[in-house]
Amino acid sequence: MKLWQKNITSLKEVERFTVGRDREFDTMMAKQDVLGNMAHAIMLSEIGLLTKEEAAELLAELKKIYARAVAGEFVIEEGVEDVHSQVEFLLTEALGDTGKKIHSARSRNDQVLVDLKLFLRDELQQLAEAIKPFFQLLQSQSEVYKDHLLPGYTHLQLAMPSSFGLWFGAYAESLVDDMVTLQAAYKVVNKNPLGSAAGYGSSFPINRTRTKKLLGFSDLNYNVVYAQMGRGKAERIVAMALANIADTLAKLSMDACLFLNQNFGFISFPPELTTGSSIMPHKKNPDVFELIRSHCNRLKALPNEIMMMTTNLPSGYHRDLQLLKEHLFPAFGTLKDCINMAALMLQHIEVKKNILADEKYRYLFSVEEVNKLVLQGMPFRDAYKTVGLSIEEGSYTYETKVQHTHEGSIGNLCNDAVADAMNEVLEGFNFHQTNKALEQLLR
Amino acid sequence: MKLWQKNITSLKEVERFTVGRDREFDTMMAKQDVLGNMAHAIMLSEIGLLTKEEAAELLAELKKIYARAVAGEFVIEEGVEDVHSQVEFLLTEALGDTGKKIHSARSRNDQVLVDLKLFLRDELQQLAEAIKPFFQLLQSQSEVYKDHLLPGYTHLQLAMPSSFGLWFGAYAESLVDDMVTLQAAYKVVNKNPLGSAAGYGSSFPINRTRTKKLLGFSDLNYNVVYAQMGRGKAERIVAMALANIADTLAKLSMDACLFLNQNFGFISFPPELTTGSSIMPHKKNPDVFELIRSHCNRLKALPNEIMMMTTNLPSGYHRDLQLLKEHLFPAFGTLKDCINMAALMLQHIEVKKNILADEKYRYLFSVEEVNKLVLQGMPFRDAYKTVGLSIEEGSYTYETKVQHTHEGSIGNLCNDAVADAMNEVLEGFNFHQTNKALEQLLR
Amino acid sequence: MKLWQKNITSLKEVERFTVGRDREFDTMMAKQDVLGNMAHAIMLSEIGLLTKEEAAELLAELKKIYARAVAGEFVIEEGVEDVHSQVEFLLTEALGDTGKKIHSARSRNDQVLVDLKLFLRDELQQLAEAIKPFFQLLQSQSEVYKDHLLPGYTHLQLAMPSSFGLWFGAYAESLVDDMVTLQAAYKVVNKNPLGSAAGYGSSFPINRTRTKKLLGFSDLNYNVVYAQMGRGKAERIVAMALANIADTLAKLSMDACLFLNQNFGFISFPPELTTGSSIMPHKKNPDVFELIRSHCNRLKALPNEIMMMTTNLPSGYHRDLQLLKEHLFPAFGTLKDCINMAALMLQHIEVKKNILADEKYRYLFSVEEVNKLVLQGMPFRDAYKTVGLSIEEGSYTYETKVQHTHEGSIGNLCNDAVADAMNEVLEGFNFHQTNKALEQLLR
Amino acid sequence: MKLWQKNITSLKEVERFTVGRDREFDTMMAKQDVLGNMAHAIMLSEIGLLTKEEAAELLAELKKIYARAVAGEFVIEEGVEDVHSQVEFLLTEALGDTGKKIHSARSRNDQVLVDLKLFLRDELQQLAEAIKPFFQLLQSQSEVYKDHLLPGYTHLQLAMPSSFGLWFGAYAESLVDDMVTLQAAYKVVNKNPLGSAAGYGSSFPINRTRTKKLLGFSDLNYNVVYAQMGRGKAERIVAMALANIADTLAKLSMDACLFLNQNFGFISFPPELTTGSSIMPHKKNPDVFELIRSHCNRLKALPNEIMMMTTNLPSGYHRDLQLLKEHLFPAFGTLKDCINMAALMLQHIEVKKNILADEKYRYLFSVEEVNKLVLQGMPFRDAYKTVGLSIEEGSYTYETKVQHTHEGSIGNLCNDAVADAMNEVLEGFNFHQTNKALEQLLR
Repeated sequence: MKLWQKNITSLKEVERFTVGRDREFDTMMAKQDVLGNMAHAIMLSEIGLLTKEEAAELLAELKKIYARAVAGEFVIEEGVEDVHSQVEFLLTEALGDTGKKIHSARSRNDQVLVDLKLFLRDELQQLAEAIKPFFQLLQSQSEVYKDHLLPGYTHLQLAMPSSFGLWFGAYAESLVDDMVTLQAAYKVVNKNPLGSAAGYGSSFPINRTRTKKLLGFSDLNYNVVYAQMGRGKAERIVAMALANIADTLAKLSMDACLFLNQNFGFISFPPELTTGSSIMPHKKNPDVFELIRSHCNRLKALPNEIMMMTTNLPSGYHRDLQLLKEHLFPAFGTLKDCINMAALMLQHIEVKKNILADEKYRYLFSVEEVNKLVLQGMPFRDAYKTVGLSIEEGSYTYETKVQHTHEGSIGNLCNDAVADAMNEVLEGFNFHQTNKALEQLLR
Repeated sequence: MKLWQKNITSLKEVERFTVGRDREFDTMMAKQDVLGNMAHAIMLSEIGLLTKEEAAELLAELKKIYARAVAGEFVIEEGVEDVHSQVEFLLTEALGDTGKKIHSARSRNDQVLVDLKLFLRDELQQLAEAIKPFFQLLQSQSEVYKDHLLPGYTHLQLAMPSSFGLWFGAYAESLVDDMVTLQAAYKVVNKNPLGSAAGYGSSFPINRTRTKKLLGFSDLNYNVVYAQMGRGKAERIVAMALANIADTLAKLSMDACLFLNQNFGFISFPPELTTGSSIMPHKKNPDVFELIRSHCNRLKALPNEIMMMTTNLPSGYHRDLQLLKEHLFPAFGTLKDCINMAALMLQHIEVKKNILADEKYRYLFSVEEVNKLVLQGMPFRDAYKTVGLSIEEGSYTYETKVQHTHEGSIGNLCNDAVADAMNEVLEGFNFHQTNKALEQLLR
Repeated sequence: MKLWQKNITSLKEVERFTVGRDREFDTMMAKQDVLGNMAHAIMLSEIGLLTKEEAAELLAELKKIYARAVAGEFVIEEGVEDVHSQVEFLLTEALGDTGKKIHSARSRNDQVLVDLKLFLRDELQQLAEAIKPFFQLLQSQSEVYKDHLLPGYTHLQLAMPSSFGLWFGAYAESLVDDMVTLQAAYKVVNKNPLGSAAGYGSSFPINRTRTKKLLGFSDLNYNVVYAQMGRGKAERIVAMALANIADTLAKLSMDACLFLNQNFGFISFPPELTTGSSIMPHKKNPDVFELIRSHCNRLKALPNEIMMMTTNLPSGYHRDLQLLKEHLFPAFGTLKDCINMAALMLQHIEVKKNILADEKYRYLFSVEEVNKLVLQGMPFRDAYKTVGLSIEEGSYTYETKVQHTHEGSIGNLCNDAVADAMNEVLEGFNFHQTNKALEQLLR
Repeated sequence: MKLWQKNITSLKEVERFTVGRDREFDTMMAKQDVLGNMAHAIMLSEIGLLTKEEAAELLAELKKIYARAVAGEFVIEEGVEDVHSQVEFLLTEALGDTGKKIHSARSRNDQVLVDLKLFLRDELQQLAEAIKPFFQLLQSQSEVYKDHLLPGYTHLQLAMPSSFGLWFGAYAESLVDDMVTLQAAYKVVNKNPLGSAAGYGSSFPINRTRTKKLLGFSDLNYNVVYAQMGRGKAERIVAMALANIADTLAKLSMDACLFLNQNFGFISFPPELTTGSSIMPHKKNPDVFELIRSHCNRLKALPNEIMMMTTNLPSGYHRDLQLLKEHLFPAFGTLKDCINMAALMLQHIEVKKNILADEKYRYLFSVEEVNKLVLQGMPFRDAYKTVGLSIEEGSYTYETKVQHTHEGSIGNLCNDAVADAMNEVLEGFNFHQTNKALEQLLR
């Protein structure tokens, strides 16, 4: 067309713009794309669209590509648009016409759907596995520091005694609830979209239940229109789960920055883990916690970003969805990084002893004194007045030892019960079934 | 203080500002506050902080207040700050000193926590129960209209045949995944925070496991610091689940508005359900769907709002949390309303017949023609060329009957399997256990 | 229609759902609706679509309705859908057919557009006028407390001396930049959309430049399709400006809560302005600041909510837009409330004296000591080492008097220059022109 | 320290985590960092902290580094933390002790502040300059297609005639308001923070007004605490302005996707600009617009992300702020890319002729017919009934020529007035002053 004869540059611009950073992110799904190809090839041979020999050749070649991906040697070549094309290109290069046959009864739309679900599933598993030792660290520090009291604040005002046993244990327990939402995301992700083709199914007599089993999915995305609708939705639900974990880490980091501040001065870290100033010996900048906080707060904005990009798109595929990968894919690495860095910090935390011995914390114990009188039989109102008066008169005395015995209190942390709860959630993921299926497929 | 003698107005302003709209929203938790009081009273009597007689008196009075709340007659009086104070005030008014005793070993902080969790739990149950018939309606419309084809779009461009069977069924299946996330929220919410007092526990030998059972919670928020941390977090996770359901409704509404547009013209509604113009007979404004879409898109912004209000607050109670109720509490009613209105519309939807008979949709079937040749043995590339050539030459013929047989396709919707999946999720809520506990408590 | 004979309830439900809370929010725009009617009537008479007499009658009646609105007596009656219908109903009730004639050459779409722009313009003016005295208070407190030093933190770690002069003055200056964005919103809002009818103009020879002048707008929204596009967009841009002011207030509140915390202990407030506990004399809960922070953080989420509700709506009116009023309209009152409450608090703030006299702050001055040596001629690296060594050896001495003289530093706050900048921004609003036009219209 | 002897790996991890992607983003500010250094050096020599010779040497060397940055050859070396250190390192390498002297009376905190403001200012200027020709293209297309009618929709229902003249013109005018907010961001950004040091000023007698002039800033961030507070705030306000432009582009893209859809079929593009399918000749996928829409919707989520990362941080520097660069810096390139791609598409758009000749659009003209009768003297209600009756009876006739003459309507687009408005905004930026200052500094 005449219009375009002088516009080669423009067309290259169109290509550059539409491909964008897709090669970079698609490479992250290379292993998953191969797995989807393997399951598809086996199924095609079973329904007669490939011969046994063709399937065997394809599987052998796909395993080689998988090995290359594991070794970090899988590359999407210049001029190849995405991971699906690259894999098909490699198969065709190696096997000729047999390589071309594998694209029957599918579309790049369901290929990317299955790649995404396998990728997200794998990342969620890795995340759960990274959280487990961090949870255990928090619990063990809770036990180590169970007798180290610190002020408990409400309204950021001194209120009642708390303890480092409670503080560490609280964040451990927070992760249990976070994992409940991570598991919901895992369940949503762990369903097979393969076979939905361009979002409207196909006239080939494919067996989607078979590919489901081969890929270790727990169920199907049955309805093909819904399978396509899962794009954007799976990403959103996963991002919400990440946001929950991120919030726990961000809050912990905020506390840590406050506790490290010299006006609080409850904790410290070896100089190697903080940045300082040789001239201001008081300076122990908690950069690691500040950056965890910042990364995690950014992650908390991710579900909203995904919603903004998908809101009011009618059903059916839109290319808008391609860009969702750009901030979600790196989020897993960032979150695992934050978990590991938080673990490193908390392993080496130094908790100040006898914080509450300082006189300025004396009124933290006034409620304890009231309760003591109540337990000795004095009506609450009278006890309250008695202690109040002693404070006014300057005769107030108190003990810095607290006697809390009920479930989840300073003297009875119930870390074991919380650990049981975590284990129950972890077992609910049923990673074993998925791992087994993939091992079998790759054998 | 002299400063303030002339400042009575200012002080009233402070009170007005700090109480805000709290009475309005607290009233919505009246029933839950009573339930929390009942469980607390029973437990206090069992650990000896109330006599059996006092407990019996309190329980009798609390049941009366509960009945008043059920009847919509519970009011937080002018000058009373919140629901907790109002209930305590009523008890004291009726029972004198016995009324005052019930506040032992608790704080308004854990009262509002337990009220919130009971309230959210109840609302989540109601929502699940509202979704069930809507899901069934979508499924039954999917069956009714399973042979009504419509164009399937990708990139909003005509792509392949779809069906109203698929369209309705897709939204039904979408709700299954949404319910998985609703259940995660339910699990997070269904844990007992009572006994955490001001967030640091208490020296009274309270029995939190006992109040857990009495209130039908499935577990404890053990760690008292974590129990307090649940404020804001429970709201966020619930809002995320609401956002997921809202997104399904918003997308359905967007589709409906598009399908009702005259350029599409796939569906219509009785005039009573649309707004029109007597002069423009073509006008059938889909106000109901536009408002569902708008309400639901707003709900999708709620998790972000909650995060913005709680981000970087250190651990421990802050009054900031009070305001979370203002947009979350009405969200449940809004979402149920949207579900009911969507159901009303979809019950009376009129689906246009033989949409695909229009010539302009003829190329939708080209992929079908290619696949037919492939199934007859022709290699894919050749089949593709043959059909392409027939289109160019004007000799292209096609059938408007599609033969899709695989799982989840036009000819095999698998609505039963999707219904099974929904039932499995619904059973996982275990509402029965909770309902039974509350019945027993109120007996 | 048979279908609906038994469905009266359903239809009432449709009406209830579509009207929603619109009457409540539309009432807030009653004055503006009347103004729009007045300008429209004058213009219609000038182009011959109303006689002079008809116009005079309408104007007289409209002024009565305006007075009613000012007195808070304007009510949208049951069964009347919105403010436009109510005003027209009142005109028709009073003037018969003349009342009906005013709707020529307009539509409810451009009526609500002009009402919204007039309403937002008025609210933005009120806000600017509320910010001015608050700015002045911050500046005067900055002068009062210019010699009161406090620690300056970086990374929340003690860094260098700061002052309350700087602290108050910083928030004053922050408002200057906020006002720049408020003025941009004002400019966007201050354009006349009237005459765009349903978003596609009209065949009547209306004079939009005339209504522009009558209503005191600075310009037209020329293109009628753009005039309609302004719905949602004006709200978003206004919400962004509110968010900027809200962020300044929220940050100030966070600082105040921290400074009031006992570990910091830099400020206090009369007991009437904080909530406390008679038993814990240390408790001075900063509820007012916590609620300002929470309200303001919620406001910061509003632009995002508006975008979520309008994203991917094609051009042209959609009923979705109706719901934007629900959170935006109350936002103005909330923000003015927060400003007033912050002012009340800061008027009565008590700043602790000689904070930096405490030994724990001694290293704050180490940089000062280094700089002193540098100014005496010692190379920076040597000065740095000298002071560092003196700290290690325990021979470190310091002065708590700082000598900062450059622009914007402790000793040279430049509050006057900042006040000039604020005045320049305030003059740029040109409220005078608008006020004059409206006075003339209402005369 | 013993603890760390075996932990070299951990420490590297800390360094890797804290530096993060900072080198990558800091490199983008190399030119700006050099400019800040030049202004600082000149000022230091003027107040006697550098000799004239030292200053001259430094300036000469800085110009070389600037040239390197312009040529894309500036690299932050491995082991160097940020751009400030790299520049200082290069100066010291070249000039020995003189290089070290330049860091007097400043801190990396105000260096990054000034770099950011200069960088954002430059990017905003580039953006404004990219928008200008795009605005002109929209206006010229509006003139070219001013007589091409298309249906106007309300509620996505056929309503009244519109035109491509209106459609193109509306998006042009939208950019005028967007530029008003861009200018507000520019004003906020165009103030000098240099000299605020670590956020608390300095005891050196620096001249901040002088560096302001040298760097072409229009004013100072006076208060040093506020200067530091500008970090995060400047980014937020800039992101809001980008979001406004992005929203205009996203809406235009949504319209384009709809208009290209075959059910609408109002526009088309040369095949080189859409992606298709050789077998489905109807397919013209609007990938470019889908990706513009998606990029722009993501940009709209950016202000929220920035707020989430900065909310509730007390005043003073926090390392959290470092991460704000990661999504904001690339946003400028993305937005300019989207503008260029939209321009490319709209340059080659093909608008279908005589769209409204199709009978299905006949009722679009019913309002015109009513108005005609009114203008002939018939009361509105009667005219309305007459046309309504003619429609019912099948005697309805209409003309497809519309006679709209008022400002901003089909027949009177007022593109000139809109162009004037745009020019006025553009002049308000006063880029000339800034450009001149920088030229002088670099001379």
